[in-house]
Amino acid sequence: MCGIIGIVGTSQVASALYDALTVLQHRGQDAAGIATEDGARLRLHKGKGLVRDVFNQESMSALRGNIGIGHCRYPTAGSEGSAEAQPFYVNSPYGLAFAHNGNLVNTESLRREMFEDDLRHINTDSDSEVLLNVLAHELQVRSSMAVSPDQVFDAVTRVFKRARGGYACVTLVLGYGLLAFRDPNGIRPLVLGERETATGKEYAVASESVAFDVLGFKRVRDIEPGEAVLITRDGQLFSRRCAEGEVHSPCIFEYVYLARPDSMIEDVSVYKARLRMGEKLAEKILRERPDHGIEAVIPIPDTSRTAASALAEALGVPFREGFVKNRYVGRTFIMPGQEERVKSVRRKLNPVSLEFRRKNVLLVDDSIVRGTTSKQIIQMAREAGARKVFFASAAPPVCYPNVYGIDMPAVSELVAAGRTVPEIEQYLGADWLIYQDLKDLVWAVQDGNEDLKHFDTSCFSGEYVTGLDDSYLRQIEQARSDSAKAARRSV
Amino acid sequence: MCGIIGIVGTSQVASALYDALTVLQHRGQDAAGIATEDGARLRLHKGKGLVRDVFNQESMSALRGNIGIGHCRYPTAGSEGSAEAQPFYVNSPYGLAFAHNGNLVNTESLRREMFEDDLRHINTDSDSEVLLNVLAHELQVRSSMAVSPDQVFDAVTRVFKRARGGYACVTLVLGYGLLAFRDPNGIRPLVLGERETATGKEYAVASESVAFDVLGFKRVRDIEPGEAVLITRDGQLFSRRCAEGEVHSPCIFEYVYLARPDSMIEDVSVYKARLRMGEKLAEKILRERPDHGIEAVIPIPDTSRTAASALAEALGVPFREGFVKNRYVGRTFIMPGQEERVKSVRRKLNPVSLEFRRKNVLLVDDSIVRGTTSKQIIQMAREAGARKVFFASAAPPVCYPNVYGIDMPAVSELVAAGRTVPEIEQYLGADWLIYQDLKDLVWAVQDGNEDLKHFDTSCFSGEYVTGLDDSYLRQIEQARSDSAKAARRSV
Amino acid sequence: MCGIIGIVGTSQVASALYDALTVLQHRGQDAAGIATEDGARLRLHKGKGLVRDVFNQESMSALRGNIGIGHCRYPTAGSEGSAEAQPFYVNSPYGLAFAHNGNLVNTESLRREMFEDDLRHINTDSDSEVLLNVLAHELQVRSSMAVSPDQVFDAVTRVFKRARGGYACVTLVLGYGLLAFRDPNGIRPLVLGERETATGKEYAVASESVAFDVLGFKRVRDIEPGEAVLITRDGQLFSRRCAEGEVHSPCIFEYVYLARPDSMIEDVSVYKARLRMGEKLAEKILRERPDHGIEAVIPIPDTSRTAASALAEALGVPFREGFVKNRYVGRTFIMPGQEERVKSVRRKLNPVSLEFRRKNVLLVDDSIVRGTTSKQIIQMAREAGARKVFFASAAPPVCYPNVYGIDMPAVSELVAAGRTVPEIEQYLGADWLIYQDLKDLVWAVQDGNEDLKHFDTSCFSGEYVTGLDDSYLRQIEQARSDSAKAARRSV
Amino acid sequence: MCGIIGIVGTSQVASALYDALTVLQHRGQDAAGIATEDGARLRLHKGKGLVRDVFNQESMSALRGNIGIGHCRYPTAGSEGSAEAQPFYVNSPYGLAFAHNGNLVNTESLRREMFEDDLRHINTDSDSEVLLNVLAHELQVRSSMAVSPDQVFDAVTRVFKRARGGYACVTLVLGYGLLAFRDPNGIRPLVLGERETATGKEYAVASESVAFDVLGFKRVRDIEPGEAVLITRDGQLFSRRCAEGEVHSPCIFEYVYLARPDSMIEDVSVYKARLRMGEKLAEKILRERPDHGIEAVIPIPDTSRTAASALAEALGVPFREGFVKNRYVGRTFIMPGQEERVKSVRRKLNPVSLEFRRKNVLLVDDSIVRGTTSKQIIQMAREAGARKVFFASAAPPVCYPNVYGIDMPAVSELVAAGRTVPEIEQYLGADWLIYQDLKDLVWAVQDGNEDLKHFDTSCFSGEYVTGLDDSYLRQIEQARSDSAKAARRSV
Repeated sequence: MCGIIGIVGTSQVASALYDALTVLQHRGQDAAGIATEDGARLRLHKGKGLVRDVFNQESMSALRGNIGIGHCRYPTAGSEGSAEAQPFYVNSPYGLAFAHNGNLVNTESLRREMFEDDLRHINTDSDSEVLLNVLAHELQVRSSMAVSPDQVFDAVTRVFKRARGGYACVTLVLGYGLLAFRDPNGIRPLVLGERETATGKEYAVASESVAFDVLGFKRVRDIEPGEAVLITRDGQLFSRRCAEGEVHSPCIFEYVYLARPDSMIEDVSVYKARLRMGEKLAEKILRERPDHGIEAVIPIPDTSRTAASALAEALGVPFREGFVKNRYVGRTFIMPGQEERVKSVRRKLNPVSLEFRRKNVLLVDDSIVRGTTSKQIIQMAREAGARKVFFASAAPPVCYPNVYGIDMPAVSELVAAGRTVPEIEQYLGADWLIYQDLKDLVWAVQDGNEDLKHFDTSCFSGEYVTGLDDSYLRQIEQARSDSAKAARRSV
Repeated sequence: MCGIIGIVGTSQVASALYDALTVLQHRGQDAAGIATEDGARLRLHKGKGLVRDVFNQESMSALRGNIGIGHCRYPTAGSEGSAEAQPFYVNSPYGLAFAHNGNLVNTESLRREMFEDDLRHINTDSDSEVLLNVLAHELQVRSSMAVSPDQVFDAVTRVFKRARGGYACVTLVLGYGLLAFRDPNGIRPLVLGERETATGKEYAVASESVAFDVLGFKRVRDIEPGEAVLITRDGQLFSRRCAEGEVHSPCIFEYVYLARPDSMIEDVSVYKARLRMGEKLAEKILRERPDHGIEAVIPIPDTSRTAASALAEALGVPFREGFVKNRYVGRTFIMPGQEERVKSVRRKLNPVSLEFRRKNVLLVDDSIVRGTTSKQIIQMAREAGARKVFFASAAPPVCYPNVYGIDMPAVSELVAAGRTVPEIEQYLGADWLIYQDLKDLVWAVQDGNEDLKHFDTSCFSGEYVTGLDDSYLRQIEQARSDSAKAARRSV
Repeated sequence: MCGIIGIVGTSQVASALYDALTVLQHRGQDAAGIATEDGARLRLHKGKGLVRDVFNQESMSALRGNIGIGHCRYPTAGSEGSAEAQPFYVNSPYGLAFAHNGNLVNTESLRREMFEDDLRHINTDSDSEVLLNVLAHELQVRSSMAVSPDQVFDAVTRVFKRARGGYACVTLVLGYGLLAFRDPNGIRPLVLGERETATGKEYAVASESVAFDVLGFKRVRDIEPGEAVLITRDGQLFSRRCAEGEVHSPCIFEYVYLARPDSMIEDVSVYKARLRMGEKLAEKILRERPDHGIEAVIPIPDTSRTAASALAEALGVPFREGFVKNRYVGRTFIMPGQEERVKSVRRKLNPVSLEFRRKNVLLVDDSIVRGTTSKQIIQMAREAGARKVFFASAAPPVCYPNVYGIDMPAVSELVAAGRTVPEIEQYLGADWLIYQDLKDLVWAVQDGNEDLKHFDTSCFSGEYVTGLDDSYLRQIEQARSDSAKAARRSV
Repeated sequence: MCGIIGIVGTSQVASALYDALTVLQHRGQDAAGIATEDGARLRLHKGKGLVRDVFNQESMSALRGNIGIGHCRYPTAGSEGSAEAQPFYVNSPYGLAFAHNGNLVNTESLRREMFEDDLRHINTDSDSEVLLNVLAHELQVRSSMAVSPDQVFDAVTRVFKRARGGYACVTLVLGYGLLAFRDPNGIRPLVLGERETATGKEYAVASESVAFDVLGFKRVRDIEPGEAVLITRDGQLFSRRCAEGEVHSPCIFEYVYLARPDSMIEDVSVYKARLRMGEKLAEKILRERPDHGIEAVIPIPDTSRTAASALAEALGVPFREGFVKNRYVGRTFIMPGQEERVKSVRRKLNPVSLEFRRKNVLLVDDSIVRGTTSKQIIQMAREAGARKVFFASAAPPVCYPNVYGIDMPAVSELVAAGRTVPEIEQYLGADWLIYQDLKDLVWAVQDGNEDLKHFDTSCFSGEYVTGLDDSYLRQIEQARSDSAKAARRSV
């Protein structure tokens, strides 16, 4: 997952892009970049690390221009190096700077086409570079000196035909304007905002509406699935649905874990959706164990706090912050003569022992992926003196890979893949394990916007709206295993 | 406020000191340092910034030794530069490395004595350097090749006579061991821990017990007021009360704001104390406005969350996380041609608008100091659509300076100084403002340990247990005003 | 002026490219870069500063591959920023990395064509980027999956037709090999080398043969004017004269000042050429002033040392190192309250006073450009006690701009432009000023290789072999003035 | 060897100290530091690396004050780490900042005394720290609030009694002034300068007079052996011979290799002394081989150039710069899969082959220490085509360690230790090897100042003017061996 932002302003935009990236940073802390157009020139700065570490006064001052895009990256398979930081740039045609959030499922065949048919060199493993070159090629074959919205939208229409997957994109077309588009199924989010200023109207597009809040933009609407929006340097906005007929399937994991609670996605408040997840989970608990004996509901900070507080309220049980997160956790150093220490959740969380002592506690997390952290946390709760430790997941069992831009481990490393709930319960060492039902999760989101009929729930259900080749699943299984990652990093 | 840690181990201690500093980092994010003893040699590394930024593999590898101290600093008056990072070092007598948390109220006269009588040069404005040189002088006049606990305790006894204020200190005496001591009133906290290892027993002292949790040490007890503890390199522990008869007065602000909720201070759980603050506040609200009409209790993250959740529970009103904190907030950049933007709380907090719309909300903070942030937050709540905005402070009005190590603004900048509660309410723009009563605050802490008869509550009451010269208050008033700070920083 | 290197090896080439750049560094100390081909991937690292500062172990380790190019840059008009460091890269067609030494005289019209006809965005002021895009375009219109030497040579033939100026270029064609070519007049130097290794034959091209000396390559021959050489990844060498009929006109300034004395250019030893310059100058001195009364010949270090020692020998006068160069000269710092000090040659040179006292000295420099340094040096010689100060230039008066890659100031800033020799003598404050005659300079070089019939001597004669538009001269006059440079730097 | 500078000015001195260090940098490129007194406060900045890399605008701006000292360091035995950069500081008494050039021969016993008698902790292996603490102790036992020149001179008198070796020192006494002194034998150089300014007279002391040239100071005189000079903050100069009766024995190696040619040491021009070394060597050559058949005299750059040019002149043989030095030599990188390459002199020097081909050449170096470089250079000359390769050393055979501050390898690594000249000739592979005679070397220097009756020539003669314990020689033999150095560096 990544965060993207694009602004067409009436004065310098770099500091606004920077501020927006800091509030989108939860979507990716691995690398960051900003590109602006300064007169006819591209200004670009990017690097590994947090937004606040990548940019300084010097690099910011060089990012002149009233129009620009920004990106913060989560390391997904094949994009861990420094060279793969976004935005990417190609100089032909026009000069294009590009950033995206998402993932393609037919990258390899596109990559081959690029090389054999279009003679374009793709220099990284990043599917962003592939997508940019597909776009560049489609623009080039239609290109002329005087660019028109129709040319651009025709090119995007072709891109939608060629590129399968979930993707939200922002592109700076040098000398022309900002182009943003969202995959035909609307899997990844993208939202449009505007702001009136003394010097005229300004537009922005972003992964999440929180970016608008910090900038003082007003959220206008979500970009539609398969829609492209083009905002020219002089502030004219054009849009077209370049793909139609596909099922609208927003990624439900955005609501579970990815997005900030203060964001609105598809007209649904993420915060409210999480409250409803807690309520639904409470209903299930009361249904399954009316005499649950829970004495405290304790969230695993930070994401699950919202669902957990609603759950506690619905159960009528005290809500207690039994774990304190270490906000300043640093590296693990090995001193001469010492062995590497176990990477422990203890460095990240510390229990408030008095909240556990001799109590039946219900720990709540947003979801359970590998299960290794949950297992350690349950152990910590026991050591802190808990009598019984129950564990609740606000999402159903994660059994399948996510192929639309959320980095999950290989299926073989998912605790729920191939295990029954009692088996997982035993593995984690919980006295009771309870998962949200998928229909309840869907309801919790849908209740905020009844027009949403379908979601991408593939990591729970194994159903992929874009269709998938078997070979693709094998390939990501391989790429995402820890040993594969270690090998890539050692290069 | 600062955080300190000292360890006498049986193997390399640098990585443990580092980990401890990361969990004490909430006490000071301005600078950090570690000193260890490697054979007969001092190893020292310190710098401006967060622990994770100050140290790298190279600097850590150089910090060899089984005994060491660490420090993280909050910038207090007169210690903003990089030269003032702790630990400090003097090479005579023995070689002493020193770090402390706290503040002296007779620094200036000590500084003069140092220079005129002891010919010791004090090179910074830091009272830590003064305190170290007082200690060094007292050790020197009693010194001999074979150091004895009695010599050391006699020297500390003299330090207690000369140095007035609140201070908790750790000192590495090269070739000898670790010396820790706490001011005669026990204003600043200091706690002792131990750990059994395969290679023998290890000791540690720290500002807060959370440091022990992350390291796997067991909390033994608080260091007593006026007590000095000496742990030799070979693991023998000596202790003596070097000052007696002073009133034990732990700083109550540690419980209100400073300490981590998962710490135990003076046998009182900070988390529990905060829950009780919320309960007491609920009682006051119900007493004063039985028909309060509050529809949601909303904490200002992060410190007030505990009190607010207990308050909500006691009122029977939903607890809602109406503000989301931006964890990745960066610098404010000024682009060419732009004016400096107002530093806004909007960069740090974002409202979840749906939680405010058409509701009567009670915002809860741990305390109100300047009032400028509270004012902006109340305004944000209104803009998010709140019908009425009530505001509660878990601590009483802050009217007086803190002189024992907590950096507060000049009195003239405290919103409660010289204002009645209705006047403050009006200044902040709240529909209702409610403060905790001091006796309730004291009760909330005391209820955890009935042996505590007295607290330092000087910033609420204006009563200073150590006594104070009038000139001192004038002096800090001057030093802490924003204009004075700006002048110092510009140097 | 810049330095370029390209190697097609049989094992890792990055460290060889690095070493070559360090011995070519005298051609440009402003920026450096290396690009290699690692499998099908481009590896690129470049930055501002000296070679030794731009690269570290981490960046070098990433530059994997058996084939690569390198560049060190002197800041010429319009290429002062960090973005303009070479090599440049375009990804279409094939993926091309490019570095060059030289300058075009029709950049502006090429730039316009690029944009209007080829829709290629040129993002910098660097004519390297223009030249790369001309090449890319010409390759693209002829391109196919299976590249052939003929296609490539046809493209270069077109490049020679379109690009007027002096340029020597190296290009990495990803997946294919190394392409090197030299302008039709052979103005800028480029030399071919080879080395037999256990794993096969390796080829290299470089600006100067010294690069081969350090690497253990054998100098084979100079690349011909208008020749292109293509060396495939598997070590096959192809070459073709892609432009013929132009007058071969190597830049004579390479021999005067630019090149290292240990280089061979066009089969002429630079060192020997400089010795002959000294001899010719001695002849002129003896001719004009048989009773010159010179008591010591003193070079201005470092370039003029060779000519000066031959001159001294020919005159039968002692050769004395009267000036010592400060090898470690640093920045000029301004302390608070101080005014900026005059940038003085005194920071760079220091006289050995005893060598001047009461003597008639002849100072020798390779050439005189602005005259400001010469003037200060003459003044230093007087202050050191010289009775009379004579000044000799091993090159004729510099009166015209260099447009083929040597950065000279605007004509208005050339001391010899519009001044007679006596006027210059007076301006400099010399007791006697003597310039080499152009025909003697030409002879000094030509004597090493009688096949050389013509040289580019434009900065002495004002004759430009490629022809020049008047507008171009006006444009560079503007770009090179100090005020223009200051304006660019302040951006 | 190191370089030191001290200035008592009437305005900010930091930039002058910086400039002075850049011209003293040839004495040490390993680390650099500056200390100034700003009001009553010490400002100190130091670090590893060249002067130009250690200081930037920020660190320079912080070095406020009208009085200060500077140091650049050559890594000698036991002072290779970063912690050992000078100046050193102790805060008792007064606050002293100290820097020195030289070496003590009784460090170990002083170190023991410091610890056992004075309870002063010495934290590094640097004898500078020892010397500073001896001084501090002697000042402290005589100290009082009102410092007087007599007290200070009495303390230095004691330092001279306790500290045996060669040392030139500058000390900042905070609140008082600058103290400089030189060892009783005057082994290491130290020179006094002055400058009249609009705001009054300024004084400086420096290792070499070149520092004065760049600053515009006038060289007044050398500091006498055993003399201490004290310049108060308000510009009063006091001086006293604090040790008398010792033989004045300036280090002759300063003239051979260490000092810049443009320096005056003991009223002798280093440049002239080197010319005379060349002349004397020519006499010996003509005496020993009247038919030497030498066709070119070729210096090994840079130090030997002066002697070589005089030698060539005296022989009547052409002087040729047959080797070009690579000014920009960088690090040696090892690429994955490659073995470490031999560290070769080829990376530093490149022959101008035409100057060697079929000639009898005489290579001239200032001295021969290990012989490994000479051997490689002779080999290079042969490969460049020389018929016969003769080799001359401007200094006699180096057979003994230098213990007064010049870092030489262990005796076992000196090529001349235990070998006859023919054996060395054979080892080096020279056709003829000729060394300067010691009496000729002495004459070459002495001829500049007949008052100089004696020199420290210990590395040629094995005679140590201060006397030496056998144990000391064994100890440095051990410390200086390459394996010992490697071990220290790996720490």
